[in-house]
Amino acid sequence: MARRSANAPLQEFALIRSLEQRFACHTPGLVQGIGDDAAVIETSAQTWWHLTTDLLAEGIHFDLKSVPLESVGYRAVMANLSDIAAMGAVPRYLLISLAIPRTVKQSHIDKLYRGLMKACRLHDVALIGGDTSASKAGLFLSITLVGTTSRHRALFRHGAKVGNHIHVTGTLGDSLAGLNLLMNSTTPQPSEKRKGEFLRSHRRFLVRRHSHPTARVAEGRWLNDRQLATAAIDLSDGLSGDLRHLCEASRVGAEVDLDRLPISSACRAYALEIGVSPIQLALTGGEDYELLFTTSPHDCDTIARQAGTRGYRMTRIGTIRSQQFGIQMTSDGRTQPMPATSYEHFR
Amino acid sequence: MARRSANAPLQEFALIRSLEQRFACHTPGLVQGIGDDAAVIETSAQTWWHLTTDLLAEGIHFDLKSVPLESVGYRAVMANLSDIAAMGAVPRYLLISLAIPRTVKQSHIDKLYRGLMKACRLHDVALIGGDTSASKAGLFLSITLVGTTSRHRALFRHGAKVGNHIHVTGTLGDSLAGLNLLMNSTTPQPSEKRKGEFLRSHRRFLVRRHSHPTARVAEGRWLNDRQLATAAIDLSDGLSGDLRHLCEASRVGAEVDLDRLPISSACRAYALEIGVSPIQLALTGGEDYELLFTTSPHDCDTIARQAGTRGYRMTRIGTIRSQQFGIQMTSDGRTQPMPATSYEHFR
Repeated sequence: MARRSANAPLQEFALIRSLEQRFACHTPGLVQGIGDDAAVIETSAQTWWHLTTDLLAEGIHFDLKSVPLESVGYRAVMANLSDIAAMGAVPRYLLISLAIPRTVKQSHIDKLYRGLMKACRLHDVALIGGDTSASKAGLFLSITLVGTTSRHRALFRHGAKVGNHIHVTGTLGDSLAGLNLLMNSTTPQPSEKRKGEFLRSHRRFLVRRHSHPTARVAEGRWLNDRQLATAAIDLSDGLSGDLRHLCEASRVGAEVDLDRLPISSACRAYALEIGVSPIQLALTGGEDYELLFTTSPHDCDTIARQAGTRGYRMTRIGTIRSQQFGIQMTSDGRTQPMPATSYEHFR
Repeated sequence: MARRSANAPLQEFALIRSLEQRFACHTPGLVQGIGDDAAVIETSAQTWWHLTTDLLAEGIHFDLKSVPLESVGYRAVMANLSDIAAMGAVPRYLLISLAIPRTVKQSHIDKLYRGLMKACRLHDVALIGGDTSASKAGLFLSITLVGTTSRHRALFRHGAKVGNHIHVTGTLGDSLAGLNLLMNSTTPQPSEKRKGEFLRSHRRFLVRRHSHPTARVAEGRWLNDRQLATAAIDLSDGLSGDLRHLCEASRVGAEVDLDRLPISSACRAYALEIGVSPIQLALTGGEDYELLFTTSPHDCDTIARQAGTRGYRMTRIGTIRSQQFGIQMTSDGRTQPMPATSYEHFR
């Protein structure tokens, strides 16, 4: 939520941010307004509600030539589920706004809804309302998702402390690799012959990671229920950009050990095949929908011990430093500032 | 909410409706899902939350050549406020999704936000979150608005009973007349000379009614708090279409006295000038954002007496009949079926 695709003019973002700040107001019941993965409102003496909204625009977030509509619907819901996961909340209710061009047929809309509802069913989310319209130009989807937590029990971006450990769930860069494979027919053909090469199974895995990402709802709830995380954000813009958001909100810096970044064998094989660094894919690849979170050092053992038994992949990738330290990355003992790149959605 | 602009192929609407029904589910806390102006959820032992979402797409709901962006923002919020008004709820929190083409400048976005926030401030609504993105094709806004009522105290579409009186707030057809004036430069020029002709003041009034409509939030709250209405819906698709929605939800018919329809002198003068029936404008004109509601006959006096002292214009326009009766309109003693027309948004 409140995320900006990097390919719109920067001045616009600056303006929108300033307007949002100017007009944002403190109102009864509002716990968290603009500036986190979801807004938080106290709805009763026991409960907080978390509201997030994410839009997908044709030609920006997806291209119907390369991605099936079922996947567009699925990903739209997952993008919102990921925001709710980053708050440690239980997803509950969903509203959809949909503008549909005349060129889109009935059977396509059916596929789009199938994807939407498949993702909803996985998490027992109820579709409670929406609005549909014709569109003169391109398909637009906007989803609003409501989640709940107990009162005073949520993960925010602003809780990271100097000395905290930085973790991520899952593996990074897969979605970008999958998108590249879908978009680019000149990508080297996978081979089943030589070991270590880019295999068909690698391609299938990466394309699936892009077309059907997994929001880490169970992981977020676990971290929140057990009070294991001091701060959290979901990885939608890429590690480099989203770590920066978390550090800004917490007024801290960070040191990331690039050699620890969890990268799948498929992503490594793909990077090798096309001659780029897998680290680069992991740092800048967006839409992985993994969680980035920070923990107190003495919860590190609990996480290492219990996450594995629950089937959660969680990897420590660095340490929170002071704001003066900035955001730096180390590899092979060398340290340098992390570039302030953010993932550009498909253009 | 859950409204469809009439210019998309009807099969799509039928499909979407069937999918919505197929996938809609009953879930804990859900009082009303798809099928009313807003979804309703029980958030505490005292409170119901009302959630609505409405989208505006460039080229469908507005044309930037004829409508300033300030008005687009204002109307987007009013469309949602009108849904909340129809539930008798107090509007509280708002989220915005915004896809912005590169051709739109900083100063334009500033104007859009000014319109949005002006409408929000009128009703103490807090902007709590949103998402922005570039757009390859046209400006797209989707707003989600949250309102609240006491538990078990809301206006629904489904409560109308045979014998109930049908009322509307304000005047009908003004917004369509205003839109026509904005769109059509060949409209007869207003004259200040002859009495009874279409005057500059008429033009200003009608254009204003289109560009800055008034959601009837106070009227909706009053009807709900005083338990005066048995059913309500907001007039966004036009009287003819929205009365049909209310009747379908309540499983009743209706008889509308066309001679009672409240039509402003400006709208009458405009209709006369362009040679159309003002009744036609009132029946089919959308985006008036007035309330259509039904009342028990013995509350009629209370409404007639108290609404006026509060400055609410409320006009009885007909009577609820049986479902077998259908939806009919009378004028000069003649009765005929009301055509099932619905307002077509711009183009």
